[in-house]
Amino acid sequence: MRISELGRRSGVPITTIKHYLREGLLPPGRATSATQAEYGEPHLRRLRLVRALIGVRGLSVDTTKELLRAVSENETDTHQLLGLVLGARPATGPGPGTVAVDADPDPDPDPDTTTATTADIGTDALLTEMGWSVSEHAPAKEVVATTLETLRSLGMDYDWRSLVPYAALAERTAALDLDQLTETADPLERAERAVLLTVLLEPALLALRRLAQEDESAKRYGTG
Amino acid sequence: MRISELGRRSGVPITTIKHYLREGLLPPGRATSATQAEYGEPHLRRLRLVRALIGVRGLSVDTTKELLRAVSENETDTHQLLGLVLGARPATGPGPGTVAVDADPDPDPDPDTTTATTADIGTDALLTEMGWSVSEHAPAKEVVATTLETLRSLGMDYDWRSLVPYAALAERTAALDLDQLTETADPLERAERAVLLTVLLEPALLALRRLAQEDESAKRYGTG
Repeated sequence: MRISELGRRSGVPITTIKHYLREGLLPPGRATSATQAEYGEPHLRRLRLVRALIGVRGLSVDTTKELLRAVSENETDTHQLLGLVLGARPATGPGPGTVAVDADPDPDPDPDTTTATTADIGTDALLTEMGWSVSEHAPAKEVVATTLETLRSLGMDYDWRSLVPYAALAERTAALDLDQLTETADPLERAERAVLLTVLLEPALLALRRLAQEDESAKRYGTG
Repeated sequence: MRISELGRRSGVPITTIKHYLREGLLPPGRATSATQAEYGEPHLRRLRLVRALIGVRGLSVDTTKELLRAVSENETDTHQLLGLVLGARPATGPGPGTVAVDADPDPDPDPDTTTATTADIGTDALLTEMGWSVSEHAPAKEVVATTLETLRSLGMDYDWRSLVPYAALAERTAALDLDQLTETADPLERAERAVLLTVLLEPALLALRRLAQEDESAKRYGTG
């Protein structure tokens, strides 16, 4: 299809599509003349994905580009791919056709010289309690530690033990997530689903919690 | 305590505290002279809460102000309070000491004249399936509908039925949330906990899901 049809079918303005093409967010079409190119269904699909990541989730062009590059480079390794999508591993590995110069088998930085906070220790205790094996520098660990730190600074009686039942529910949520991935055989489709399920479902999961809270609150305290 | 001690104990700069006082985010201290005021433990606690809402969660001064006003006006009605915190009810009710002029028992707007989308219908179907009773205009409903709409526009085979198991887990999460509220007897403390548990725990819950995904992924696809 021509770029005009791509625009019509995706609902994305032509100028935006051209911007995505220049930024490399969308692979170039097949040139049919000096000024025209032909696009296919994969372009349409990729365009919608880019639109969702940038427009719906508010990711930057650079973050989106990095995520998409990682997806296409790791499409056969589901675990590696998930690691990239979850932000647990650096998304700056060598591209296809390049040679990895630094083959250091232990890319971890030197042991932390900063003092571990109570919240860091609490986060590690939570992971141990759950028996979870995750990357040492997973960004999500910091999020948990920051939350514990914040609640503590507010004088709340809240430590990692309070999070254990939440973590148990998160474990069941993650199992649901992964079940939905394995239903897909095509590696690129699985990669896209991984992005969508981790990133796009987040606001919906929080929204479901709020709706459930409202319902639970009505049941416990409602006056009719 | 003097404002200087309030600053030292909270870690918030004096200029920021003065800004919060001017904005009404923090109640004035007890004047001890023309230029000095005395602050108590409640100020310290409120200051930390404001700091968490603005600094950690990135709420605007206006949103924070509205939330705090709603909290102090509804501190005896837990369900009403939760509704406000969840954004399900307008936070612009009459303040204490004012008289409600408009006593219309049905403050809902006229029936929607816009056409319900497939995603809206799906969201209602999900709520019915779960047996949840929530406000007709709860913002979280729109979030669910938008997510369904986005996934559909990406050509994914994903409808409200896919969310049912997630909703069941959200129900259990909400029960945990409410359990932690009822442990608190003091109404203002309960109000603060409601804000903290709904707003501040959100990033931690998403982080737990990501950590659990990484662990689950390692178990299913890991190569050692």
